[in-house]
Amino acid sequence: MTLLIQGGTVANHDRTFRADVLCENGRIVAVEDSLEPPTGCDIVNADGCYVMPGGIDPHTHMQLPFMGTVASEDFYTGTCAGLAGGTTSIIDFVIPAPGERLLDAFHKWRGWAEKAASDYAFHVAVTWWDDSVYEDMGTLVRDHGVNSFKHFMAYKGAIMAPDDILVASFNRCLELGAIPTVHAENGELVWHLQQKLLREGLTGPEAHPLSRPPLVEGEAASRAIRIAGTLGAPIYIVHVSTQDAADEIAYARSKGMKAFGEVLAGHLIIDDSVYRDPDWEKAAAHVMSPPFRSKEHQDALWKALQCGTLQTTATDHCCFCNEQKAMGRDDFTKIPNGAAGIEDRMSVLWDAGVNTGRLSVPEFVAATSTNAAQIFNIYPRKGLIAPGSDADIVVWDPAASRTISARTHHQNVDFNIFEGMTVTGVANTTVSQGEVVWSEGELHAEPGRGTYITRPAYPPVYDVLRKRAEQNPLQAVGR
Amino acid sequence: MTLLIQGGTVANHDRTFRADVLCENGRIVAVEDSLEPPTGCDIVNADGCYVMPGGIDPHTHMQLPFMGTVASEDFYTGTCAGLAGGTTSIIDFVIPAPGERLLDAFHKWRGWAEKAASDYAFHVAVTWWDDSVYEDMGTLVRDHGVNSFKHFMAYKGAIMAPDDILVASFNRCLELGAIPTVHAENGELVWHLQQKLLREGLTGPEAHPLSRPPLVEGEAASRAIRIAGTLGAPIYIVHVSTQDAADEIAYARSKGMKAFGEVLAGHLIIDDSVYRDPDWEKAAAHVMSPPFRSKEHQDALWKALQCGTLQTTATDHCCFCNEQKAMGRDDFTKIPNGAAGIEDRMSVLWDAGVNTGRLSVPEFVAATSTNAAQIFNIYPRKGLIAPGSDADIVVWDPAASRTISARTHHQNVDFNIFEGMTVTGVANTTVSQGEVVWSEGELHAEPGRGTYITRPAYPPVYDVLRKRAEQNPLQAVGR
Amino acid sequence: MTLLIQGGTVANHDRTFRADVLCENGRIVAVEDSLEPPTGCDIVNADGCYVMPGGIDPHTHMQLPFMGTVASEDFYTGTCAGLAGGTTSIIDFVIPAPGERLLDAFHKWRGWAEKAASDYAFHVAVTWWDDSVYEDMGTLVRDHGVNSFKHFMAYKGAIMAPDDILVASFNRCLELGAIPTVHAENGELVWHLQQKLLREGLTGPEAHPLSRPPLVEGEAASRAIRIAGTLGAPIYIVHVSTQDAADEIAYARSKGMKAFGEVLAGHLIIDDSVYRDPDWEKAAAHVMSPPFRSKEHQDALWKALQCGTLQTTATDHCCFCNEQKAMGRDDFTKIPNGAAGIEDRMSVLWDAGVNTGRLSVPEFVAATSTNAAQIFNIYPRKGLIAPGSDADIVVWDPAASRTISARTHHQNVDFNIFEGMTVTGVANTTVSQGEVVWSEGELHAEPGRGTYITRPAYPPVYDVLRKRAEQNPLQAVGR
Amino acid sequence: MTLLIQGGTVANHDRTFRADVLCENGRIVAVEDSLEPPTGCDIVNADGCYVMPGGIDPHTHMQLPFMGTVASEDFYTGTCAGLAGGTTSIIDFVIPAPGERLLDAFHKWRGWAEKAASDYAFHVAVTWWDDSVYEDMGTLVRDHGVNSFKHFMAYKGAIMAPDDILVASFNRCLELGAIPTVHAENGELVWHLQQKLLREGLTGPEAHPLSRPPLVEGEAASRAIRIAGTLGAPIYIVHVSTQDAADEIAYARSKGMKAFGEVLAGHLIIDDSVYRDPDWEKAAAHVMSPPFRSKEHQDALWKALQCGTLQTTATDHCCFCNEQKAMGRDDFTKIPNGAAGIEDRMSVLWDAGVNTGRLSVPEFVAATSTNAAQIFNIYPRKGLIAPGSDADIVVWDPAASRTISARTHHQNVDFNIFEGMTVTGVANTTVSQGEVVWSEGELHAEPGRGTYITRPAYPPVYDVLRKRAEQNPLQAVGR
Repeated sequence: MTLLIQGGTVANHDRTFRADVLCENGRIVAVEDSLEPPTGCDIVNADGCYVMPGGIDPHTHMQLPFMGTVASEDFYTGTCAGLAGGTTSIIDFVIPAPGERLLDAFHKWRGWAEKAASDYAFHVAVTWWDDSVYEDMGTLVRDHGVNSFKHFMAYKGAIMAPDDILVASFNRCLELGAIPTVHAENGELVWHLQQKLLREGLTGPEAHPLSRPPLVEGEAASRAIRIAGTLGAPIYIVHVSTQDAADEIAYARSKGMKAFGEVLAGHLIIDDSVYRDPDWEKAAAHVMSPPFRSKEHQDALWKALQCGTLQTTATDHCCFCNEQKAMGRDDFTKIPNGAAGIEDRMSVLWDAGVNTGRLSVPEFVAATSTNAAQIFNIYPRKGLIAPGSDADIVVWDPAASRTISARTHHQNVDFNIFEGMTVTGVANTTVSQGEVVWSEGELHAEPGRGTYITRPAYPPVYDVLRKRAEQNPLQAVGR
Repeated sequence: MTLLIQGGTVANHDRTFRADVLCENGRIVAVEDSLEPPTGCDIVNADGCYVMPGGIDPHTHMQLPFMGTVASEDFYTGTCAGLAGGTTSIIDFVIPAPGERLLDAFHKWRGWAEKAASDYAFHVAVTWWDDSVYEDMGTLVRDHGVNSFKHFMAYKGAIMAPDDILVASFNRCLELGAIPTVHAENGELVWHLQQKLLREGLTGPEAHPLSRPPLVEGEAASRAIRIAGTLGAPIYIVHVSTQDAADEIAYARSKGMKAFGEVLAGHLIIDDSVYRDPDWEKAAAHVMSPPFRSKEHQDALWKALQCGTLQTTATDHCCFCNEQKAMGRDDFTKIPNGAAGIEDRMSVLWDAGVNTGRLSVPEFVAATSTNAAQIFNIYPRKGLIAPGSDADIVVWDPAASRTISARTHHQNVDFNIFEGMTVTGVANTTVSQGEVVWSEGELHAEPGRGTYITRPAYPPVYDVLRKRAEQNPLQAVGR
Repeated sequence: MTLLIQGGTVANHDRTFRADVLCENGRIVAVEDSLEPPTGCDIVNADGCYVMPGGIDPHTHMQLPFMGTVASEDFYTGTCAGLAGGTTSIIDFVIPAPGERLLDAFHKWRGWAEKAASDYAFHVAVTWWDDSVYEDMGTLVRDHGVNSFKHFMAYKGAIMAPDDILVASFNRCLELGAIPTVHAENGELVWHLQQKLLREGLTGPEAHPLSRPPLVEGEAASRAIRIAGTLGAPIYIVHVSTQDAADEIAYARSKGMKAFGEVLAGHLIIDDSVYRDPDWEKAAAHVMSPPFRSKEHQDALWKALQCGTLQTTATDHCCFCNEQKAMGRDDFTKIPNGAAGIEDRMSVLWDAGVNTGRLSVPEFVAATSTNAAQIFNIYPRKGLIAPGSDADIVVWDPAASRTISARTHHQNVDFNIFEGMTVTGVANTTVSQGEVVWSEGELHAEPGRGTYITRPAYPPVYDVLRKRAEQNPLQAVGR
Repeated sequence: MTLLIQGGTVANHDRTFRADVLCENGRIVAVEDSLEPPTGCDIVNADGCYVMPGGIDPHTHMQLPFMGTVASEDFYTGTCAGLAGGTTSIIDFVIPAPGERLLDAFHKWRGWAEKAASDYAFHVAVTWWDDSVYEDMGTLVRDHGVNSFKHFMAYKGAIMAPDDILVASFNRCLELGAIPTVHAENGELVWHLQQKLLREGLTGPEAHPLSRPPLVEGEAASRAIRIAGTLGAPIYIVHVSTQDAADEIAYARSKGMKAFGEVLAGHLIIDDSVYRDPDWEKAAAHVMSPPFRSKEHQDALWKALQCGTLQTTATDHCCFCNEQKAMGRDDFTKIPNGAAGIEDRMSVLWDAGVNTGRLSVPEFVAATSTNAAQIFNIYPRKGLIAPGSDADIVVWDPAASRTISARTHHQNVDFNIFEGMTVTGVANTTVSQGEVVWSEGELHAEPGRGTYITRPAYPPVYDVLRKRAEQNPLQAVGR
């Protein structure tokens, strides 16, 4: 199957340039100024558009069993929504219950994901510890293309990993050439504040952000970074929502540590006034962790993204419908945490990022695709428009506008946190594995067409980490 | 009993001025330019000297049972050594074994301290948690003049307090108007590094600093500060030894948080080259936690002291003789942690601080006495030369020199970390409770003459903290 | 003349305590718990009140000839307004025209100030340079009790001091033991932006803040601090209005430099929305330099004041009436710069500072009085309630409220930037030189009763600076 | 002419990969895993080597007339030395004398550079100001391929640009889409310190660093950055040598400003102990501005390079022989400032950067080539191994070692600041415009083979700057 994307401006992480892009058998085979269409070739007209690497959302939770229910979006609907927005790969999470073998959980999730419409990979969570966890981490890295493990520093009494697990697991990651990642919130403090708020009669969604103030995230970010730094491991902080956590990453990087940060589109765009909405359903629909923050934090997150303190953008896409959210009607701590976003991430970031002069087009590409591919070691297969790369491509129309709404979105959830926003900058056509899967407002993506992405161990950040350990083994023991 | 200190320059935390100081019945009764000696009055000639508030060492461990032995210095010998160096008050630590009632431990320590030659108080450590701990904290504050509680974030498997205890105890402190204090080192990391170093055959004192690198302290400082900050409690970090921890305090203070930091004389003066001494005994004699650090950290500590990020200076005076240190001959993790310092603190700080232009004389007084008195709420009873204050006074000769040595010091230990240093700035005469206890190189201090210092709840820092909580109760719940 | 202030709580910079205060012949002679009134003694009832050192406003411009007019407030009316608000001393500015001998200007201002109702001193501005300036600076310090010199880094074409003058004058200050102070705004940038705004047709007050953005202040603060730091001189930044400048001071202090910062009550309370007021007169009434800033900067200023980065609070009291402001009706660069504040400084700071938990009562005293006294070397004559200090005292009622208005204020100007604010915390009685000059809403202050305050050279900050230079003369040459 | 580089690992700024590289007519035409050599093609064997973009040294001064003499290295010898070390492009400086037309100076330098052996471009210095300067800047950008202008903030009395020139010229750059660059040292302070040191009899090279302490650089960096930031212009700081200046760049970037920094290989490797060499000639040979710094600053520079605060590495290659240096035998201020480096930059950075784990191979490529190409808008023509790019290539042998010495180097100067260092990582073969110009230790480069590089206006950084100005024109006036 051959596809020619004609007349556009290729936008990579390091530059933009006029070129046509020829795809064959799921790969890009030529990127040149003026390509003749081979016979029988499909043609996509990209006049006036950027031709960019398809988006990578490194943080989604499709059909996640969580807090007594299951996320409403499955791997098919969720990846379809992604394709409609220009996102062609996701990295979802395998989250074993405490006591569950990591491999068992991994295979369960692999089964669920078989219906995916775009490519996908998995971070695997370390929610408990024993020798089997140690062993399974090795098997996952060596045999199953997993190169990152997730740790929840919050959710006490459920999946929280305390310091001894963090130390053991980060150290295991280091042995394996994998990236430890963390959800950075101090679970003891969250739990304490939740109980206190409930005791004081604060049971509604407005109490949610009060139970997870910025310091709680800053603390955990600092802790994870310094544990990793002490061990000589890299660290990746998911969904950084505060200046506090961004400051920690900047501090660590300024000291030569290898810390990375991800920011959610939602945290960049939406502020914490949503929790004070008198409509319980609206307020509850925004309950996710970490919560939305004040405008000062938003501004700090944008600046951190601009200056390289944060590298990736994601969504933490995790959908719960109103009736699910209603489980926490009398107790905000029981509202299933999560919100949708995969479909709109790229548009809202373009609109609020590129159209305002916060990000250049190459910086946008880096933040939505390339950096995730590099950090998680699937570059240049993903994240680049170049011969040899996967033909995961979005033809981006910077002049087109659309108004976001739950009534029209492809996400399988009855709420959209960006409801009513009109954004300029839209995925005109999305190509996945060389196939046009989204075009003229239509999806053409069968269930199961997505493939699992194998991610090799030892991502680029390990080049320097291994050299440092080799140069100074003692220091590596106790830096 | 009446005493007149004549001819000196009074040095308080806010200024120096010419004045005589008259003491009666253990109190200062007059501070005036030219006082006539009452009949029968003893006279101390302070010509050319500063007349300063006696030093307060807010961090000592006399006769501490620790790591399988007991510190060699008892409350009598230790306070005598303090008096010889100009220190007239100590705040020692009651450290209950896990499971031991706090009140029981408190009374045990009170008994040991009855022989003290100078005034003393106690921080009480929270090393475990149950309802009795909660209750005893209340009793100690209300009935026994304790207003600070200590938490060890290191010493896993012994007295380490993990996050749930920190949250519970800091919150209890807040209820009681007490100051939580922490030994800030991440105990999980220390334990991990210790095991790793031992496995790699690094068993000597040179491994000690490798097992407790600066990041380990920075992490714990950040955590304690942010837990306290979230709860709306103050926090006091004992023996800050790194730029990392000092940076955390500065960051917190710049955000309006009420964080305090203490630095040891030893950490300001001595660097980590001592651990590489080929003489095992010398290297082991310096094993304490946190360890001595590189000169860059020393420089950062001085600057933090100069700019107000750190407020107090202490010693962590905890003496173990060579034969005790030898318990760790084959395993550095078994070397009893501790070093002496109470006798020399003021001289080495004057020499390295005032004589170099790092600190003014009033800043020296603040750092060695007044700030500790204010933070722990015994000001102006202690820490000030003024009518009504306790007659705890040091007549300081800025021109006199002495050479420090274990052969001549009054500390009951066979090693001095400042051995051989010649310092200019010496306690000429020390007055405790209006009595001359040190003069012309002679001690005149009977066992048991020291009294227990009752410290009231709600130190000054609570003025603003209570106002904040009152103004914004919700925020206080989850700031 | 004898006065007893009975029943109050003395509030000094380091503590509060119950005491009566006895004043004789303009001095405080006793501060004790329960004083018997001497015969014939006047009594002030301070029940429920704090008895604090009278406020010192270290930045006022009475009857200043500026921008083609003269400030409407003279030394009598202005100091009266100060007394009504609890401020008993001012430090005003002698501002020689370029070319004018400093001594001539000094004597001119001394003449104008003879009618003052409270004590006063003068900073002297260095607006040009030649040998006479160098000489006059010496004469002023040695013979006229001046120990601080002011430099305007803005006002190009008028009184701006470029770098060569800053270097020469700061160096001269260092020789004399004086404090260089700066108005920190980059005059070249301001001029450039003013011209550009005017060219673009932006002629109204809304253009004023655009012509002096925060970077312009941050730049100049950085420059002044580093010039001083290089020379080994101290530096005092007047009216710090931005996070940018506060960050510079914090950075310098964290490196051991001796930098001080002053903040205006107005900058802490009022934000830049005032310049967008559709009423030209209201907008123009707020035109001063640096301008009011956004709430983010306000928040940063409060935090800088809380953590000790900023030490003093002032007003830059400089009154121009509407008809004077109207000179810039068609060109905002011609609006006389300045606003009133001396009368309300202490009340608005108490209300927004103490009542909110930002500042403790001792911190309030330090920020409104003691710190200025210490920095400018008139402590403990001013800034302290203690025997021997001047009887400049304010009896502060923390429970009383008043509503601020130009209709009722004592300032000789037709506008009040705090108009309509109701503040809790009011000067009940003000005592100057032992006389009750403000009581029950009545002023009792004759013109000319104020005296000139002689300020000795070598303020306390020089203790360490001289020691440093002595210890390391080479470094002092080029640190 | 056709050349095939076979068997190597291509190293670009974003990754390394196995590929052969085919060059024709001075361009790269294919980069593929296994290329068949075309007939008649020359072959370079790159087994075991990296195939990297040729180095770009963005800061050289060939045959510069300066301080009464002329740099000993001309454009031919200097570019040959560059080629021997793997550097295939330089950006030199046109420095008009005050009063000299910029265009006249530009043409003079163009003439001197005709003999260059590698490609070259020119920054043009703005050393004075009048309408002709304004005009010539436009002509240079529009007609002569200049897109960057240099400003010396030091060298008072010669080429120093005070603030009014900085404002005018940066603003002109903004109009033209050019990059302002600065030599950041406060010239008034340097001059003051030089005079003072000479007066105190300090006339030797040891006084040189004392006359230019770190604060002097930090000040100027802060000033240039904030002037640019206020105007909305980008800024590039040449030869950042201190933590102070690096901190300023980091601060600016963290606020969203577009500030770039360059660091010299020498500043990363050599410390200020060289100035205390008892051998005058050796000490004098290191006299350059800014001077070499302490190890603490070196460490800070490496970290700034690692975390992206600094982007480019250069040499400030400016050679003066011993007899020229001797002009300052009695007065260090007359020692011609400058040192060599172009030949060794890449090797010393590889050895101290890559071999130690400070930089990955892609980061090395970015720092020695790509980033300079991007900032100065000659990317991807330079700085990338990809079809279409110039065939400027270095075949880098990471295992080969050489010992640096003035006896063997190709630089036309009798001293080498890296003398005696043995470095691992050597340019095995250098290709310029598709020709092998350095191979097996032999140069094959005729004078005049280098070509002038036209650099288009509006480098990538302007994408966001223009968008910002467009979005918020008022803010752009006074941000």
